Amino acid sequence: MQERIIVNSNSGSYPIYFGDVSQVTPQLSKASNIMLLTDENVAGLHMGYVRSQLGQFNLKYHILPAGEECKTLTSLESAAAKLVEAEFDKSCQLIGFGGGAVGDLTGLLAAMYHRGVPYIQMPTSLLSMVDAAIGGKTAVNHKYGKNLLGLINPPELIIMDLHFLQTLSQKTYCSALSEVIKYGAVLEQDFLFWFEARIPQILAREIDVLQAMIKKSCQLKASVVSQDEFEQGNRVLLNFGHTLGHALENLLGYSKLMHGEAVAIGLHFASVVSHLLGMVREDVPDRIENILQRCGLPTTMGSILSKQEIINSMQMDKKSRSGKINMVLLQDLGVGELASDVPLDTIELALDRVLEN
Amino acid sequence: MQERIIVNSNSGSYPIYFGDVSQVTPQLSKASNIMLLTDENVAGLHMGYVRSQLGQFNLKYHILPAGEECKTLTSLESAAAKLVEAEFDKSCQLIGFGGGAVGDLTGLLAAMYHRGVPYIQMPTSLLSMVDAAIGGKTAVNHKYGKNLLGLINPPELIIMDLHFLQTLSQKTYCSALSEVIKYGAVLEQDFLFWFEARIPQILAREIDVLQAMIKKSCQLKASVVSQDEFEQGNRVLLNFGHTLGHALENLLGYSKLMHGEAVAIGLHFASVVSHLLGMVREDVPDRIENILQRCGLPTTMGSILSKQEIINSMQMDKKSRSGKINMVLLQDLGVGELASDVPLDTIELALDRVLEN
Repeated sequence: MQERIIVNSNSGSYPIYFGDVSQVTPQLSKASNIMLLTDENVAGLHMGYVRSQLGQFNLKYHILPAGEECKTLTSLESAAAKLVEAEFDKSCQLIGFGGGAVGDLTGLLAAMYHRGVPYIQMPTSLLSMVDAAIGGKTAVNHKYGKNLLGLINPPELIIMDLHFLQTLSQKTYCSALSEVIKYGAVLEQDFLFWFEARIPQILAREIDVLQAMIKKSCQLKASVVSQDEFEQGNRVLLNFGHTLGHALENLLGYSKLMHGEAVAIGLHFASVVSHLLGMVREDVPDRIENILQRCGLPTTMGSILSKQEIINSMQMDKKSRSGKINMVLLQDLGVGELASDVPLDTIELALDRVLEN
Repeated sequence: MQERIIVNSNSGSYPIYFGDVSQVTPQLSKASNIMLLTDENVAGLHMGYVRSQLGQFNLKYHILPAGEECKTLTSLESAAAKLVEAEFDKSCQLIGFGGGAVGDLTGLLAAMYHRGVPYIQMPTSLLSMVDAAIGGKTAVNHKYGKNLLGLINPPELIIMDLHFLQTLSQKTYCSALSEVIKYGAVLEQDFLFWFEARIPQILAREIDVLQAMIKKSCQLKASVVSQDEFEQGNRVLLNFGHTLGHALENLLGYSKLMHGEAVAIGLHFASVVSHLLGMVREDVPDRIENILQRCGLPTTMGSILSKQEIINSMQMDKKSRSGKINMVLLQDLGVGELASDVPLDTIELALDRVLEN
């Protein structure tokens, strides 16, 4: 699997490689100094493998706290201190080695250190491989908002080494499948059908099917962000399922639900809204719900939150304006659009479905 | 003086306006919310004037600590909190209203808030008008280095309202003249001669001369950064005088010398080095020294620092590589070049001139 996908960017296109980590060798050979940023968990599991693959380089490394905790300005400041202490100048190379959080922090640090140094995304989670690592979004969190401070900073390259997926828990692995299902539902119906026909193999992480699934997901996301890097147009379609998803994460504090689980409920919700507005037949939300459930993902969440607090939170979504809820809906299976000012009574009806036990 | 200068940028060109602050009205009319970031000193002196000029807008404001103290990630985080509290979304507009430090912090915040919102530079100091506000450099300081974390983020526009210059102390005003003298010395000999012939009027802040001087400085800087926004080529020429200047600031801790004063000593030093290497005749450093002195700027600094510590610091300069000192020198008056590996004995000889009392 040594093919590559090219992502176009305002600051030059960059490749996604599939295969062994050692493929980054030519890129690393150009650098005066290399720092690998990773987190405690990934370091424990995979540093030995990376060292064996990249043994010829004098890799320095910086271990971040695991999870979203690494995404703070304080953490960025400490990582910058590590770079200065190791005498890194502009000709250095950073590597974000971990899940989405590590990638986000590394990309932002790379944008800012000496006004910009190159970095490589080396994702280790399925969520990062199919979504977070692609498209150059970088950020830290703020007490007032997730990803509130960030920017678009494309990496030099992304290397997808499926070796790392072996150690993911089934819950973490399955959670990421909601983003894959999203691509099919909102961008390409045939991919959704392909996925649906292979759920047992996907859950068993059969390598050939997994490779094909990740590659197709990367192609779909790369195609969207290549056309709309700065979110002026169709990149918003990738937000399908995320209006409710983000609202649930905000209200529950990112602990009760994994991101992919929140998105799964959001995908179900958005397809129900699409049906209630007469855009798709009832079998579309049913089919999406069935696929999500077969992947072990939640599609309802019980009544731990009230409809009103969920609606309030959705009104704060970045796509909403002046209290009107704007969200991505389905014109058809595999065809999305951004809908403006979705009627509140429809939202409430759809929420009733989601708040069932 | 309602002409404008256009600065080209990778992310679209932007204008520099000369004249009243009220010229930003069309830009502000497009924004849902406007936050003016300023510092304690500027707020006290000029907020009334700005309010009177922009009375039709509901300007919110955020007061930063004066000077370099505002350039921290903590300060950026607080300013972001203020934006969230005032419910600013992506359609807001920021204004950096102050000297270079305020502009640097505002530009960085604008780059990062919700992955980028527009901002206007409204410089109030001469240093910011002729230099800092132009070219999109933004940054915060780090305990390990000034401007260590930053990026290039061009403003939407820059408005140069000379009204603000009236309140500058003569020391602060004169300090900024070293950057003007730099433009003439390294980019355009005729501008240096023009300046030299008008030093009394410039020191008296005669408005016509001041306008012409600022406009020409903006044209020269805009021309350089339009060709080389990301510092791959000729933008380095703007660093003339700054190799020693930054070293002195680093060693003395930014308190003993103003930036422009450190640069003045650096301009003298760099022109002496150019002469010692046979690139210009002796009358060139003498003439530059004379112009600086007539503006009340220092050209020597006595022996409070040792030659060796200054050399060590210059070896850490961003232009230096592997301990070799690279610096901008004069091929001729008005013509600069980046010289690699300047001989240490020449550096020492030139430092002897600068360390005189």
